[in-house]
Amino acid sequence: MEGVVSVGEGDALVSQGGGVVGWSQECLLSSRENHREDTCLSLLGGEVGGSRLHVIAGPCAVESREQIVEIAQAVKEAGATGLRGGAYKPRTSPYCFQGHHEEALKWLAEARDRTGLAIVTEVMEPGLVPLVSAYADVLQLGSRNMQNFALLREVGKSKKPVLFKRGMSNTVKEFMLAAEYILAEGNPNVMLCERGIRTFTEETRNTFDINAIPVLKHRSHLPVIADPSHGTGKWEYVEAAARAAVAAGADGLLIEVHNDPTRAMSDGRQSLTVERFASLMEQLRRLAPALGREL
Amino acid sequence: MEGVVSVGEGDALVSQGGGVVGWSQECLLSSRENHREDTCLSLLGGEVGGSRLHVIAGPCAVESREQIVEIAQAVKEAGATGLRGGAYKPRTSPYCFQGHHEEALKWLAEARDRTGLAIVTEVMEPGLVPLVSAYADVLQLGSRNMQNFALLREVGKSKKPVLFKRGMSNTVKEFMLAAEYILAEGNPNVMLCERGIRTFTEETRNTFDINAIPVLKHRSHLPVIADPSHGTGKWEYVEAAARAAVAAGADGLLIEVHNDPTRAMSDGRQSLTVERFASLMEQLRRLAPALGREL
Amino acid sequence: MEGVVSVGEGDALVSQGGGVVGWSQECLLSSRENHREDTCLSLLGGEVGGSRLHVIAGPCAVESREQIVEIAQAVKEAGATGLRGGAYKPRTSPYCFQGHHEEALKWLAEARDRTGLAIVTEVMEPGLVPLVSAYADVLQLGSRNMQNFALLREVGKSKKPVLFKRGMSNTVKEFMLAAEYILAEGNPNVMLCERGIRTFTEETRNTFDINAIPVLKHRSHLPVIADPSHGTGKWEYVEAAARAAVAAGADGLLIEVHNDPTRAMSDGRQSLTVERFASLMEQLRRLAPALGREL
Amino acid sequence: MEGVVSVGEGDALVSQGGGVVGWSQECLLSSRENHREDTCLSLLGGEVGGSRLHVIAGPCAVESREQIVEIAQAVKEAGATGLRGGAYKPRTSPYCFQGHHEEALKWLAEARDRTGLAIVTEVMEPGLVPLVSAYADVLQLGSRNMQNFALLREVGKSKKPVLFKRGMSNTVKEFMLAAEYILAEGNPNVMLCERGIRTFTEETRNTFDINAIPVLKHRSHLPVIADPSHGTGKWEYVEAAARAAVAAGADGLLIEVHNDPTRAMSDGRQSLTVERFASLMEQLRRLAPALGREL
Repeated sequence: MEGVVSVGEGDALVSQGGGVVGWSQECLLSSRENHREDTCLSLLGGEVGGSRLHVIAGPCAVESREQIVEIAQAVKEAGATGLRGGAYKPRTSPYCFQGHHEEALKWLAEARDRTGLAIVTEVMEPGLVPLVSAYADVLQLGSRNMQNFALLREVGKSKKPVLFKRGMSNTVKEFMLAAEYILAEGNPNVMLCERGIRTFTEETRNTFDINAIPVLKHRSHLPVIADPSHGTGKWEYVEAAARAAVAAGADGLLIEVHNDPTRAMSDGRQSLTVERFASLMEQLRRLAPALGREL
Repeated sequence: MEGVVSVGEGDALVSQGGGVVGWSQECLLSSRENHREDTCLSLLGGEVGGSRLHVIAGPCAVESREQIVEIAQAVKEAGATGLRGGAYKPRTSPYCFQGHHEEALKWLAEARDRTGLAIVTEVMEPGLVPLVSAYADVLQLGSRNMQNFALLREVGKSKKPVLFKRGMSNTVKEFMLAAEYILAEGNPNVMLCERGIRTFTEETRNTFDINAIPVLKHRSHLPVIADPSHGTGKWEYVEAAARAAVAAGADGLLIEVHNDPTRAMSDGRQSLTVERFASLMEQLRRLAPALGREL
Repeated sequence: MEGVVSVGEGDALVSQGGGVVGWSQECLLSSRENHREDTCLSLLGGEVGGSRLHVIAGPCAVESREQIVEIAQAVKEAGATGLRGGAYKPRTSPYCFQGHHEEALKWLAEARDRTGLAIVTEVMEPGLVPLVSAYADVLQLGSRNMQNFALLREVGKSKKPVLFKRGMSNTVKEFMLAAEYILAEGNPNVMLCERGIRTFTEETRNTFDINAIPVLKHRSHLPVIADPSHGTGKWEYVEAAARAAVAAGADGLLIEVHNDPTRAMSDGRQSLTVERFASLMEQLRRLAPALGREL
Repeated sequence: MEGVVSVGEGDALVSQGGGVVGWSQECLLSSRENHREDTCLSLLGGEVGGSRLHVIAGPCAVESREQIVEIAQAVKEAGATGLRGGAYKPRTSPYCFQGHHEEALKWLAEARDRTGLAIVTEVMEPGLVPLVSAYADVLQLGSRNMQNFALLREVGKSKKPVLFKRGMSNTVKEFMLAAEYILAEGNPNVMLCERGIRTFTEETRNTFDINAIPVLKHRSHLPVIADPSHGTGKWEYVEAAARAAVAAGADGLLIEVHNDPTRAMSDGRQSLTVERFASLMEQLRRLAPALGREL
């Protein structure tokens, strides 16, 4: 990375041979100018970033062995290729349920054994990267940790595939530069995930930044995953936002599904029932060919 | 509107028979609780709000007779049913081009005579409603005027179809209550238009609030039009955002098209060439049937 | 304004003698580069923009003759030099109280006769500028109308002093360029008013942009007034925000005061009682000399 | 913490004896309802949170032994009681200067030995809490880490005084609940720091949320520190914002000062020279008594 110079916080200009150049020039590993072809990751039972759409579904939190196995079987049947579920939960309040930790990781592994789904679960601190990696197929990095640089470096060293979520008030530039912390440690297996940003809107929990999907595809060669569950925050808008994300060019979706949303320990308001999830998958199956994709 | 009471600025609770109720109850004319069926407007050569998608295309500003006629013929050929073009332009600076005013209205009328396209053009002040109505098929109300209540009332009295744009930092609630100013004057012909909101993002001019489309369809019976040109502010992202809007449930699109974007007097950065517009229409023609719509 | 060229919506670059220059260069009438000295307006019983702080106080809406006279006498006694009160109210919902119109203007005039306070009241549409000007000492332009260009031009032609409020999501650049619409019509008597912007915050109605005060003083020679009532939206925070505005360099304050806030027809939540207002004035009287100002 | 229940992500309602109550009730350790008196921390050569204002000044990054000692002596002479300076720097890009790490901590300790100033420096990962604690008087937690819960818990266990910065798009509610992670580990020595939020504004790097100061003082018993350097991002506005913060009720200030801002390795744009810092301290010395404070 010769010639790269620091030019002040909040700024990421880099210099090559003396001249100051923009932030997304070829010296950035995530930049499309550096790597024209789409990067495809081999995981989730296939290639992410190619013509096939991937859907990762499951509950916000792994609540019990029975819950996660039941949901895994349902989403598998509907066509999902990945299973999401939190073992370690980042909660706004320390007095809220924080996850079942290693026990939940074991239940996730059992769900994989039974269904063949790839396991996607969040890791929240550097010290837990080895433990979570031992169970997960994909490490999820959450919005609150988009600029937790020690964690990014540790995940970079692990070489595990990463589902990397944009922070709720971070620009695309900051997002790509944060991904660079992972890539620069030698881990190229990064999926960028748009999950909604914080704005003044009241009717939805976040504002799903649909523009970010073509912007990221234009700027970067990495696969782009969309999370319409957090992007809207209300289950009744998830289907519309999911279709929109695919139409805008997303390579995959992350969808919260629960077998009993009204009793979910977290995020019930934005979780689809398994029936609605199956219906969404049907919609996507009709939509994909019109966009040159398959599901 | 008996029983409606005032309860302070920024609030819109209404009372019926003594009890205070929410803002979108059946007493609001725009509310779906008041009118379960979709409202379809007969204009633009068909029904807006039904199964057929409508596309209104054209330049930001009407620059000359030749320009508007040439663009009108091109977008008509590609499948548009409406022609947009500003005769009166709301400009941030008083020293920028403000439009060709009545002369431009006459050129728009000529373009309609030649193509059959419905004319959509902005009206910016109450005193000009009669003049603009004499030429236009649809009165456009711009973002900056979403809460220009005197203008809304005048447009309400005119009974002309209205393309009503959401303000760049207004909530859905404020948007629907502003529409109420038009509806309450006896004009039911209102199309709600999402055109992007102002946020911290840097890569696009606005943040296209894709969530607003299903939210508006859920809350209101009025047709919803999307403006991905302002929603993104860069032509290279317009196609993705347009596809997304349709996938999310929009009833129509408003697209800026110019015969020579690099020389446009305004908004060239977000205008499609006529060739790209034709390509977008092809994409939408493939997409619509997968969504139960036609183009 | 020779040599000024248009360069696209949202942009305000101007050209002089061929070169493109920035938006706040000497060709802008509001710019400090064009006019190094502070502009002082002779009104409100003195000079606004000089060393003396001015406080304009009163209710959101003029509710009755008795109400406005009582409040006028109380705020006069506490040291205010201006009386605010809405005769025409911009309301989010058409079903809320819209003001007592000309009758309220007459009550305001009576309050001026009794107290000597300058009358500051909002005008919302071009056609009403002559009527409101006949009663008011200062025309207030509200946030929703910051880019109501027809109204700005009409107020510019009137030559009346103007209290010009920043829009809730407009940049300083847009604010100064909108002021230019008034100045360019030959009316130099403009006071710029910061009143809070719309953000994601929940605890206050708006985010009072304290930074805008030194930015406006740096960029422009016009007086700067602060409105901590709308800036916070809750009476318990108004005193702190008012002190902060003065410490940041504001030339005056606009404060909502009501004789019975719990029964106010609008904005009661952010209105000070007359007792609290008197207490705030005491605080400001102690603070002003430490800042080289007087009250 | 009996009776506290989890009710979904993003929410922090707690239950006592069955009824669901608001988020800032007496069961929260940081809440003023739980602890009516102001909390004063004994550090920085005195009590923070009492009548005396405290000013923590210094460079963004510790660049060299000479630099930090020179700045320390200058800010001490001007009246500062704390010295800030980053040994570990959170940088948007991995290719920018990341700090001199333990070497910088040693230089900070030397600066303390020479001046008596309390050392305030950032810790960015759980594993470094013991090392940074060995040198620092106050652990700074940066904006990007406001919801880095593993780090918060570790800092909570350390019992060191903490300067806790609000995240750039977090609400006051989220900020107080994040502080709860530290307090719940048994560390009551927390200072809450407002440092500006991310909005649409262009003229300043952040929007300094002056409202947050009285809101935090109202909601919590913890001392409140303001950071006008990050709050504005431009040195020419720092003095105005600093005065405003004190007028709004802040218990102290955090100010970036550099001996040669144009050559600073980071944040030069917002750093005061030592001369301007001395001038600011003079202004504050005049201001404090008018607010019932001393410096």
